[in-house]
Amino acid sequence: MGDLEPHRIIRLERDAVVVLDQRRLPDAEVELRCETPEDVARAIHALAVRGAPAIGIAAAYGLALAARRGDDLDAAYAVLAGSRPTAVNLRWALDEMRPDPTPARAARIHDDEVDRCRRMARHAATLVPTAARVLTHCNAGALATGGYGTAVGAIRAAWEQGLVEHVWVDETRPLLQGARLTAWELDQLGIPHTVLVDAAAGALMARGRVDLVVTGADRIAGNGDTANKIGTYALGVLAARHAVPLVVVAPTTTLDPSLESGDGIPIEERDPAEVTARFPAVNPAFDVTPAELVHAIVTEEGVHRPPYTESLPRQLSRARP
Amino acid sequence: MGDLEPHRIIRLERDAVVVLDQRRLPDAEVELRCETPEDVARAIHALAVRGAPAIGIAAAYGLALAARRGDDLDAAYAVLAGSRPTAVNLRWALDEMRPDPTPARAARIHDDEVDRCRRMARHAATLVPTAARVLTHCNAGALATGGYGTAVGAIRAAWEQGLVEHVWVDETRPLLQGARLTAWELDQLGIPHTVLVDAAAGALMARGRVDLVVTGADRIAGNGDTANKIGTYALGVLAARHAVPLVVVAPTTTLDPSLESGDGIPIEERDPAEVTARFPAVNPAFDVTPAELVHAIVTEEGVHRPPYTESLPRQLSRARP
Repeated sequence: MGDLEPHRIIRLERDAVVVLDQRRLPDAEVELRCETPEDVARAIHALAVRGAPAIGIAAAYGLALAARRGDDLDAAYAVLAGSRPTAVNLRWALDEMRPDPTPARAARIHDDEVDRCRRMARHAATLVPTAARVLTHCNAGALATGGYGTAVGAIRAAWEQGLVEHVWVDETRPLLQGARLTAWELDQLGIPHTVLVDAAAGALMARGRVDLVVTGADRIAGNGDTANKIGTYALGVLAARHAVPLVVVAPTTTLDPSLESGDGIPIEERDPAEVTARFPAVNPAFDVTPAELVHAIVTEEGVHRPPYTESLPRQLSRARP
Repeated sequence: MGDLEPHRIIRLERDAVVVLDQRRLPDAEVELRCETPEDVARAIHALAVRGAPAIGIAAAYGLALAARRGDDLDAAYAVLAGSRPTAVNLRWALDEMRPDPTPARAARIHDDEVDRCRRMARHAATLVPTAARVLTHCNAGALATGGYGTAVGAIRAAWEQGLVEHVWVDETRPLLQGARLTAWELDQLGIPHTVLVDAAAGALMARGRVDLVVTGADRIAGNGDTANKIGTYALGVLAARHAVPLVVVAPTTTLDPSLESGDGIPIEERDPAEVTARFPAVNPAFDVTPAELVHAIVTEEGVHRPPYTESLPRQLSRARP
């Protein structure tokens, strides 16, 4: 499991933020050295490091790196905050770092995120039935959170309790985070899994072969509307039709109580060439699953149920000072 | 449009069935020569020629080739009929050929299929609203039918009537028939189009950017349950949620009145390596969209509406003798 250790996924060295380059997995385990805040922002934008909590952590280390280098911190903040628009964790981590842009502070944010994952996984496992066949989308694993994972963390905790029979992994086009990253993590964890094309999830549910859908999130509005990887919305609609619970697992750092609903969440449009370079294409990275389709939202604070305007924490839990 | 002409897509030469190799499109326009019925069956199984009507036509030419070669016709019938399980057109065409396995008979089946496409396209165009933004899945175009197309034929006819504003093309994993073949056809026809990952169709509908979903079919049961490319079921569920009509366009040769419902349709499981060779995978080629999600089924005989047990033709229209 050494490859899934937090320091292997993201760490701050003397003169660089070092990330395990997620674009190269599973074929190669290559580290990418980011020697400036701009390098870190580029690594985030290019998805060398990805996942809402992980990009927050990378940005935190990036700001610590900027401070150590004597860079203009306002400029570093701006370039890091602008690297991707949808995940709210990025700005949260930078705001946490701003008064104390030290390596120790960034490391604590990192430790805290992994600790939150372990706590939310214990809560989420209470929602997993016996012999569960769990479907997940994209990668909400250790790679996405700097260690342990949200949705995959929940699966891991439930697996350790003997509750999981099988994991269905949506390949997650266009960049195949499911087929490349989640399958790689589950393989290392020894959890039985099968990859499918995203469009096959509905047929699996129709055949009664899915008991639970578990995903992460990139931003959750105050009413529980959840932005997550493109395709999550379709899963939510299909899951509702088949009475399969869709459970969103995410730290409170992914909550955005400033937004009343998902309508306010900015959706990143990525390069169409990620889909096809041969013909015109469109490439929205995320969609919004309305709260009515979400069975429960699990954070490190517990299991939150509808109505989310009442059950979700209104104050984000802070990282330890 | 020369590349979309029927004789370019499939034809019988003196000693071979020649198909435009759809595996190589759009990068290369390469013809594949099939010199035995076994070659034809392999080309069908490997998807060098694909689409329910087109594989029926290829099989018809394959049986004519067998007769000309003096092969055992029972054996040729068996190998061709066994090349793919889901499309009923394959067996239909072979049964049509059996009493008269001549090149002229096969050519008439081919001509008839293209003629059916043109007729069903005229009927289907009556269901297309003004300034329609139409979404389609997989390839139900000229390549899939030996000329003109079913769903793409309907789009083409509606476009010629000035009804189509834009076409959304699901890329259609794992083999990208949408991104490779449908986009290629629309490009040649000059019809504006945009490719998207399959998982993005729901978000487009949620944003109100889809007016109509049009697909082909691989087999339609007596009650209107429709087997089509994996992912069609999810589109049907999403379309119903957003009150977007899903229209299935297919010739009567795709109807299977012998089946009461879609439960009896055999679903082909293809090589998991088409999805990923790195981790375990599953690869169902089709799913079944229940009739309740299908707004209308259009054949060459007209627009059929629910209840399909009453509106669908009970007798298949025969090819001209």
